[in-house]
This record gives sequence, structure tokens and C-alpha cells, in this order.
Amino acid sequence: MTIQPYWVSGFVDGEGTFYVGINKNITMKIGYQVLPEFRVVQHEKDVVVLHALKKFFNCGVVRVNHGDRMEYRVRSVKHLSQIIIPFFDKHPLITQKKFDYITFRKIVSLMKENKHLNEKGLQRILTLSRTMNRKNKFRTSTTI
Amino acid sequence: MTIQPYWVSGFVDGEGTFYVGINKNITMKIGYQVLPEFRVVQHEKDVVVLHALKKFFNCGVVRVNHGDRMEYRVRSVKHLSQIIIPFFDKHPLITQKKFDYITFRKIVSLMKENKHLNEKGLQRILTLSRTMNRKNKFRTSTTI
Repeated sequence: MTIQPYWVSGFVDGEGTFYVGINKNITMKIGYQVLPEFRVVQHEKDVVVLHALKKFFNCGVVRVNHGDRMEYRVRSVKHLSQIIIPFFDKHPLITQKKFDYITFRKIVSLMKENKHLNEKGLQRILTLSRTMNRKNKFRTSTTI
Repeated sequence: MTIQPYWVSGFVDGEGTFYVGINKNITMKIGYQVLPEFRVVQHEKDVVVLHALKKFFNCGVVRVNHGDRMEYRVRSVKHLSQIIIPFFDKHPLITQKKFDYITFRKIVSLMKENKHLNEKGLQRILTLSRTMNRKNKFRTSTTI
């Protein structure tokens, strides 16, 4: 299965998620772990599409999401900043999901500069992450 | 908002529906009306994307779907067969939704030949339509 770049941005506009988890982690010096994740979830009947995405981006993994749902996901900051983000900069999202993407990109950029390892940076990431994945909320570029 | 053709097929692979309704209609000679519909439903926050699809295809309408959901839809057999179907033949779907699309295309083709106006043709359309939109069912080209 070969897929076109703009097919990927259209499919992700419908089915993808840009998510940043912030978890307590006592093994980290700052006490919190920042976990950015790009994810596409599908019913297992379409797992072949998730494998096609993995092949397309040449990074990430395909795993069980929940029950009969499978997911393609990328968590590595290196792969997110070197592969996923440049792709969506070049083949932009169109729906309101683009605002999640823009915030996600900011957070990954802060992580690349190790800002998540000090309190000020972590607080900024926390504030940014709270604006994400808010279903059914209208957003504009001034609200993020 | 300008959209790329493959973005459209990717987005429709995630968010679109190819549906054929068959309703009793006593004003029709055969007693039934066949209603094919291509539809994309979004929360109202993304209504601008539905208008972009309408502009892209230069046919169809944007209407309320249900509650805070809006839809872009095309029902005209002429527009389906002259615009929508040629587009998805050229920019194919990849997910299992492609099997709905192939059945939908068959039904629209039968309608173009007025097969829905006689009992044999109507029965064939009914049988075809029953294989469509079956969530979470694996399908292959031999099952449709």
C-alpha cells in the first residue's frame, strides 16, 4: 500500500491526535515527565493503514490501543521533531486540529531545548498542554 | 481555504460516508425511492472545512446534521456520477471504506441506467446496499 503525502494530512486531520501527557514521575529530578505523542487510532480491520503510516514515516510503532482498536504512535522527541513536525509543516492540517498541532510543535521545540527539565519551562509546557484536545471548542490562533 | 485533492481523499477516508437509503415512497411507481448520498459530518467548529469541500467539488450543500453537527452532502445522481465518483476513482480511498465506495459506485451506475425503477434492479440495489456501512466488519473485494 503506497500513500500520498496529502492523503496522510487529510486522514490525520480526521483521525489523528497530537497529545502531550504530563505525569508525576519520582525518578525524574523535576518530579514530572513530559510525554508528547502523535497517534492515529483505527479499528483493527484497518491495521494495514496504520502499518502503511509507519512505513511512510519510517518511525513509530503499531500497537493495541484498547480492545479491538489499534494505534500507530510516535513518542520519540527526535522522530517527532525531525520527521513528524517537518511533514505537517509541509503538508498542513486544515481543521481546528491544526491548533493542537501548533501547540504540540511548541512543546516539542521546548523539549528539544531541555526546557521541560526546569520548573519554569515545565510550567510553560503545562499551561500550553491545557489548551490542547479540547473537543468542540472553537479556537483561533490568538487563543493558543 | 484551498485544499489538495489527496487531502480530500484522506479526510474522507476518515470522516466521510457513502450511504444509500431505500425508503418506501407511495408516490413512486415502484413504491420505493433509492437515495444515494455522499456525506461528511463535522462539529460546527469546522464548518469552514465543509464549505471548502463544497467549493472544491462545486456541488452539494452544507446543512445541519444533528445538534451541533454540520454536514456537507451530495445527493444528485448527476453530481455523484459526474463529479464525486470520478474524483474518488482518481484519488482512491485506502481504508475499508473503499468497499462502501465501490458498492456505492455500482448503485449509482445502476441508477444512471434507471435500473432502480424496475423490481429486478431495485432488488439488486437493495442486496448491494445491505453490504454497506457495516461497522467493524472486515471486508475484501470478494465479500461485496
